[in-house]
Amino acid sequence: MGRDEVEIREVVRRWMVATIDGDAGGVLDLMTDDVVFSVVGREPFGKETFAALSQRNETNMSIKGTNEIVEIKVLGEWAFTRNRIEIAMTQDGAEPMRRAGYTLTLFRKERDGHWRIARDANMLSAA
Amino acid sequence: MGRDEVEIREVVRRWMVATIDGDAGGVLDLMTDDVVFSVVGREPFGKETFAALSQRNETNMSIKGTNEIVEIKVLGEWAFTRNRIEIAMTQDGAEPMRRAGYTLTLFRKERDGHWRIARDANMLSAA
Repeated sequence: MGRDEVEIREVVRRWMVATIDGDAGGVLDLMTDDVVFSVVGREPFGKETFAALSQRNETNMSIKGTNEIVEIKVLGEWAFTRNRIEIAMTQDGAEPMRRAGYTLTLFRKERDGHWRIARDANMLSAA
Repeated sequence: MGRDEVEIREVVRRWMVATIDGDAGGVLDLMTDDVVFSVVGREPFGKETFAALSQRNETNMSIKGTNEIVEIKVLGEWAFTRNRIEIAMTQDGAEPMRRAGYTLTLFRKERDGHWRIARDANMLSAA
């Protein structure tokens, strides 16, 4: 496994840990400034909207989940992964909302040498 | 616009024309043998399953639509596009089923010099 692949796997791991910890700043550090998130049923959005959505979710939300890289390929200064994600979000002790499915994610190696998420296609649905 | 970008745009155009024409063979020629399609609500699938699904759809299905490339980037022998797709499928004169949304698609330049779709993340939903 090359060094780039090790670092990209570490970004995925840190993303999941920061998400579970509710560490919005930690998550934002792992994406490029020009990141584009694509999900079902809304227009693609960037870092600012991601941050706003994260703030809205911070109130007493408990998140657990797994994120398995099923494919990873480095293409020079870019890379992609396909991940299988399972996530359960619990708000104020209500029944957990479970979502599962795949992502296709592009990473870019930035000038500071760090890999960050640059494009993300999210195909999770209610599980 | 570089030659690779021109050729990738032509693949997207031919994909749409073949889809509208119900030309399943023409569509299959535009994907790599190891292609992976990811959609919401089912496991990712490959070329063989794509072909089987296409056959099922061939019966009196009329397809119209548009496919706009909103971003394209060549990364050596790979490339990605983000597309906005609107599609209307009409079966036997029934009300058209409309779907719209975005894709994140990876292309690979193969040994024969042709670009083909290698990974596709489809986030279309009922419109």
